[in-house]
Order: sequence, then structure tokens, then C-alpha cells
Amino acid sequence: MKLKEPKTVLRVSSFIINMSGTAGQVIRCKAAVAWEAGKPLVIEEVEVAPPQKNEVRLKILFTSLCHTDVYFWEAKGQTPLFPRIFGHEAGGIVESVGEGVTDLQPGDHVLPVFTGECKECPHCHSEESNMCDLLRINTDRGVMINDGQSRFSIKGKPIYHFVGTSTFSEYTVTHVGCVAKINPAAPLDKVCVLSCGISTGFGATVNVAKPKKGQSVAIFGLGAVGLAAAEGARVSGASRIIGVDLNPSRFNEAKKFGVTEFVNPKDYDKPVQQVIADMTNGGVDRSVECTGSVQAMISAFECVHDGWGVAVLVGVPNKDDAFKTHPMNLLNERTLKGTFFGNYKPRSDLPSVVEKYMNKELEVEKFITHTVPFSEINKAFDLMLAGESIRCIIRMDG
Amino acid sequence: MKLKEPKTVLRVSSFIINMSGTAGQVIRCKAAVAWEAGKPLVIEEVEVAPPQKNEVRLKILFTSLCHTDVYFWEAKGQTPLFPRIFGHEAGGIVESVGEGVTDLQPGDHVLPVFTGECKECPHCHSEESNMCDLLRINTDRGVMINDGQSRFSIKGKPIYHFVGTSTFSEYTVTHVGCVAKINPAAPLDKVCVLSCGISTGFGATVNVAKPKKGQSVAIFGLGAVGLAAAEGARVSGASRIIGVDLNPSRFNEAKKFGVTEFVNPKDYDKPVQQVIADMTNGGVDRSVECTGSVQAMISAFECVHDGWGVAVLVGVPNKDDAFKTHPMNLLNERTLKGTFFGNYKPRSDLPSVVEKYMNKELEVEKFITHTVPFSEINKAFDLMLAGESIRCIIRMDG
Ligand SMILES: [Zn+2]
Ligand SMILES: [Zn+2]
Repeated sequence: MKLKEPKTVLRVSSFIINMSGTAGQVIRCKAAVAWEAGKPLVIEEVEVAPPQKNEVRLKILFTSLCHTDVYFWEAKGQTPLFPRIFGHEAGGIVESVGEGVTDLQPGDHVLPVFTGECKECPHCHSEESNMCDLLRINTDRGVMINDGQSRFSIKGKPIYHFVGTSTFSEYTVTHVGCVAKINPAAPLDKVCVLSCGISTGFGATVNVAKPKKGQSVAIFGLGAVGLAAAEGARVSGASRIIGVDLNPSRFNEAKKFGVTEFVNPKDYDKPVQQVIADMTNGGVDRSVECTGSVQAMISAFECVHDGWGVAVLVGVPNKDDAFKTHPMNLLNERTLKGTFFGNYKPRSDLPSVVEKYMNKELEVEKFITHTVPFSEINKAFDLMLAGESIRCIIRMDG
Repeated sequence: MKLKEPKTVLRVSSFIINMSGTAGQVIRCKAAVAWEAGKPLVIEEVEVAPPQKNEVRLKILFTSLCHTDVYFWEAKGQTPLFPRIFGHEAGGIVESVGEGVTDLQPGDHVLPVFTGECKECPHCHSEESNMCDLLRINTDRGVMINDGQSRFSIKGKPIYHFVGTSTFSEYTVTHVGCVAKINPAAPLDKVCVLSCGISTGFGATVNVAKPKKGQSVAIFGLGAVGLAAAEGARVSGASRIIGVDLNPSRFNEAKKFGVTEFVNPKDYDKPVQQVIADMTNGGVDRSVECTGSVQAMISAFECVHDGWGVAVLVGVPNKDDAFKTHPMNLLNERTLKGTFFGNYKPRSDLPSVVEKYMNKELEVEKFITHTVPFSEINKAFDLMLAGESIRCIIRMDG
């Protein structure tokens, strides 16, 4: 049905026509450059080199801001790499393809992804893994793996990439393994948020925790990823979805994502795992940890029911943290699993997540709380730092 | 085929005839009584009261000795409970049944089990759990749950039960939920070992670790449970089965159970998880920990491959141990699961394990290294303490 929408088809065609002239050429366009850690991005004119072997050049139409961008932009604790073009949640259209690229062609609607799928390594061959040896996320690398060079420059001076996507630019170059081709009828201003955080949380629940209809699920952390995990529980038919957060103001928003009960650990003298066990006759059936706090990880594990409980860890911890529990908690038939990008293989699986939105199963609109034009991209940072947005869409044409 | 064996049928019939006269009566018979912690058992004449509501009285034909008997007989670290009749790995025949018992009748061939299945609690209703609320193992209880009394006495003075089975007696009384009815053609002198350790290890691999054909499996600890876990890997078609033990003499025996390579952690300067990762291009696909040492648990978890590795914990740790790992080991898509009795539900699932033996899939004979008559039961303890036996069968008629 959506495929017949004349406006979309027209837009696709016009891109194919417009872009045919740029293939093989350096494109000059606008990009938001982070010159220094924590300083506002500056919209600059950049040169974007043509895609090389196994690379594609994308026109980004919509991008959104994710905590990971902010984390590496702040550069507290990691080796700083500047100047750099951030951005990794986005939707766009293939402008041109490099040598050897057969899966994609100009005009394809795509989501770039911060981690890839080479389709050739043991992980890509395994049904159970999405941690591709070649294209697994690498936050330290600021260049393309093909030649160790950047495709971005300003007056010939290279600007670093970020996680192989750098979507805060009208055009970007990515490895073909980091691009999911999606249904061209899907509105890119909505499904762009599926290229990172929302799929991470949603997949953690539906692919890894796998609650059965009628089961109870606890979600630790009600940010975008946690709300997406709750959405996964809602779609799975969970009977009770218990949201855990230190910030009580999150609860009202969380109701829209299926959260039925709210627990603030600060309100209790006993550990939150005990609070949850008391609420649920021994523990929840499933839990999903989205904060990255090691204490929350331990609570998320210990709050699941013995015999069948499954705890899933999503949040990324600090370097020196240790997960610590009494082994009897495991021997009593609890399961502890970690997940990365919701266990989705970017190229193979992401198109089906877009279809879940198209089928009105997964509700994406409620994650999008703000929209700003590209010229005001720093507002998106302000909104996230103030905790006001779930997702803020950045329109590249504005 | 085996059902036609005339000898077996004859034995069954003769029991039915013999026993019809004892139902409802106190039976006087021989039992091996542990009067004190760590002191040799004494064969005594005991009185065995008739089964009460939801109980059955069994004639034990064969029993075997398991580490758990020895551990509680030594009574180091637990509250001692004496005099007591130990024993929980056994095969026998129902002599009589108490009120309300409809699943079993005199003459049924059965395996008593140290943990039960009431078929009515949330765990029994869950497909994923075998940790029955009513009949889950309780090593502190020395009496029947029906009335808080013992069914054993010597001249009227009660003798305590052990884990609801007390199979070191010619007759014993158990809860009906702790008895698996099995194929009467199965030789009880062989399948008696399936009522505890062998099923625990075998089930840990086939029900929980679930290696796929061609995958690699590491087994920590090559005692009876570990060898049974290896047997599960062999039956699953594992390509490499790496046995880990501090005692190199175990390796020769282990080859019979499919172990292809042996690692002694003492032979290396680096942690054993690193040794295994180096042997397997990043880690084994599955691991099963059967020692109960918390350090081995951590190694077993950290030696599985990222992306898809699954580590299963079987061995029971000390009270104060803490399982400790860096959360990134989990986030890299490793899974950590505990199991209890191989995730088998005693009544529902154990008959199918016996069938695996009858189908020559699971090889039981190689676990049985010794046989002694009941009068020499203390020899079985000596053999186990000397590390000479895997399983020693005790013939009750001897
Ligand atoms: Zn790959
Ligand atoms: Zn039960």
C-alpha cells in the first residue's frame, strides 16, 4: 500500500537523476564538525571523496542524536580524536557505490549502522552472533578500513570519521557492510531512529530476553534504549512491565511504552532486587538492564525468578567494573546474557525491524520528541544533556 | 525386544506376588546406618513403616554411591543429622503405595530421585524449570514432609532420611513426586546410576549447553558428572571435547567419554581460559563447569567464544564464594546459565534418559567401574575417597 504513495516514488526518482552526475566526483556539502571535545559543533563546508572498494556514499536525509555521540564528543575517559564528524543514527539514500559493491545501487533507501556485517567471518556465519570480526564497532578508529584514510576533508585537511557512519553530514561514506537496505516506502524521518538505540533495546527484549505472552519483565533505566526494551515487552504481550529508574519523572512517559509499574530504588531501604521479588512472588520472568551501572546489572540479574528467569545486559559498563554475584544465583537456573545491538545483524535483520514499524507492531513515533533543522544541531545536544528528549530528529535539509 | 526377555518379566511377576503380603505392614529389613559423621556405616535391621498419603514404599535392588552422600556423611560444614540412612542413586521396584497415589502401582520399575516434581507448583508448570517448590532437594530435612516423621526406626527409635530417598536400605519410603517410573525392560543394575550424577552432567550438556554438531566443548572437572557432561557432548556430535582437570590421570579414562584433548591448568603460566582461547581461535562454543570451584566457574565462563558462547555451571560452590567477571565479557554476547539435575524434571523427563540408554545412544556401562555386595558398602566409600571409582554399584541382595 505504502509503495503506491506517489510522493515517495517521485523523491526516489529525482534523487537517481540528481545524483547520477556526482558519482566518482568529490562532493562539497555541509557537515557539522566537532573541532574540540565538548565544544558546539560547527557547520562547515566539507569535501566528501567518492566511495572506494566495498564502500558506498550516502545522502543523509535525517539523523538523530544518540548518547554514544555525546559520550565520545565529551571525550571524558577515552583518547580524544578531533576534528571529527559524529552521528550514527540516520536514514538516507545511496548516492553512488564503489568497486565490488553489488548489493546496493544508487537510489536505495538505507540505514547506516555503527557496526557491520561482512557476511564472511565466523560471527557472520554464526546464527547466534552479530559481532562481525571485520566491522564490529570500533570507536577509536577515525578512518576507513580499506586504506586507513578519511573520506572527509576541509581544504584538503582530513576530518575523522566516527564508528564508520558520520551521519552529521549531508553526504557520508560507509563500508557496504554497515548499510541496511530497507523498504523504500518507509518514512526515513521516522525509521532513522531504528539504526541504533531503538533497535538495541527492542532487540534485547524480543531477540534475547524473549518474554512469553503473559510474563513479567523488569526494565532497568528508562532512557531511549530502556523504553525500546519496554516496547519490546509490550509487543511480546508481557502482563507486567516494571520500570526501574532513579528519576521518577520518567514514569509518565514510560506508560506510553507499556510500563505498568514504577520502582525508584531510592524509595526503599532494601535492595531493588528484593523489592521486585516481593512484588512478583519470587522474581520477574525477564529483566533487561539498560543503564550500564554495574550495581543495576547485579540487581537486574538477581531480580529474576529462579528456575526460569533470564536477565539481559545491554548497558555498557565502565572499564574497571566487576559483575559479582553468588554462584548459587546462577545454579538456581537463572540465565545471564549480554547483547549487542539487540542481537540484530545489521544487513540481514534490520530491514525486518523496519517492517515491524510498517505493520504497526512497533510504534516508532512516540520515541521522537523533538525535531530540529541541521543548522540547529547543537540544540539536539542541549535537549539530550538536559534529559528532555528521547529522540531528536535532525532534518538535513534545514 | 528387551520387553520379551523372559527373565525380567519373571522377576517382575515374582515381586508382585511376594510383595502383596507386605502392603500396609511394617517391613523389617537390612539398612546401612550412619550413626556418626565419617564413621563406617553399620548394617542394621530396621523397621520401615508403610507409605502414607502421596508416598510409596520401594524395594531397592541396586544403589550406587555419589559424592553428595559422602559429603553429608562427612558432615564437614553442615549441621550433622545422625543416625541417618544415606543413598540417593538407585533403582528399585514399587512394593506398595499410600493413599492418593494413582501414578504408580506395586511392581513398577522406578528410579528414586533426590529432588521431586509435584506437578502442581509454578516450577512444575513452567517448561523451563525443574526446581519444584514442594519437593526441591532439601539436605537438612531428615523426615517425610507429610507428617514431619521418619519412616525408619530401630527398636522404635527413629533413624533420619536423606534427601527423601535413603536408598542404602532394602526398603525405603519416598514421596511419589520423587519417583520416576521407567521402562521395566531396563536393567536396574545399570540405569540406577541415571537417578543422579550421570543425568546431571549429561543433561547439563544436552538440555542447557546444547552444543550443535561440530562445535567445541570444554568440560571442567572429569569426575562422574564431568564425564557425563562429556558423554553429552559426544552424543551431540561435538568435534572437540576439551577436558580440564588438575589430575592428569583422569585423561585416559576420559577418552572413553569422548574427550579429545586434555588441559591441566598447572601446566601453564597463563590462565586456563587463555589457554583454551588460544587452542580454539578465540574460545570454545560451549563449556560445562562440574567442579564447584568458583575460579573454575570464572574460567569456564571466560573461555567461551564471544558472540555465541554458552557456559553452563553445574558444580555447587561454597557458601561464601563470589562469581566475578568484567561485564564486557557478558555484553560481548556470552551466555551464563546454571543448571540443577541437568534441567530434567524427575518424573516427566527421566524415563526418556533411560530410553536413550536402551537405544544405545547414551553409554552407561562405562561409568560403572566397580560393584560390591551390600554387606561391603563401606568399600564403595573407600573407593570413592581414593578417587578410584567413577561409579560403584551396591547390590542389595549381596
Ligand atoms: Zn563479519
Ligand atoms: Zn512442583
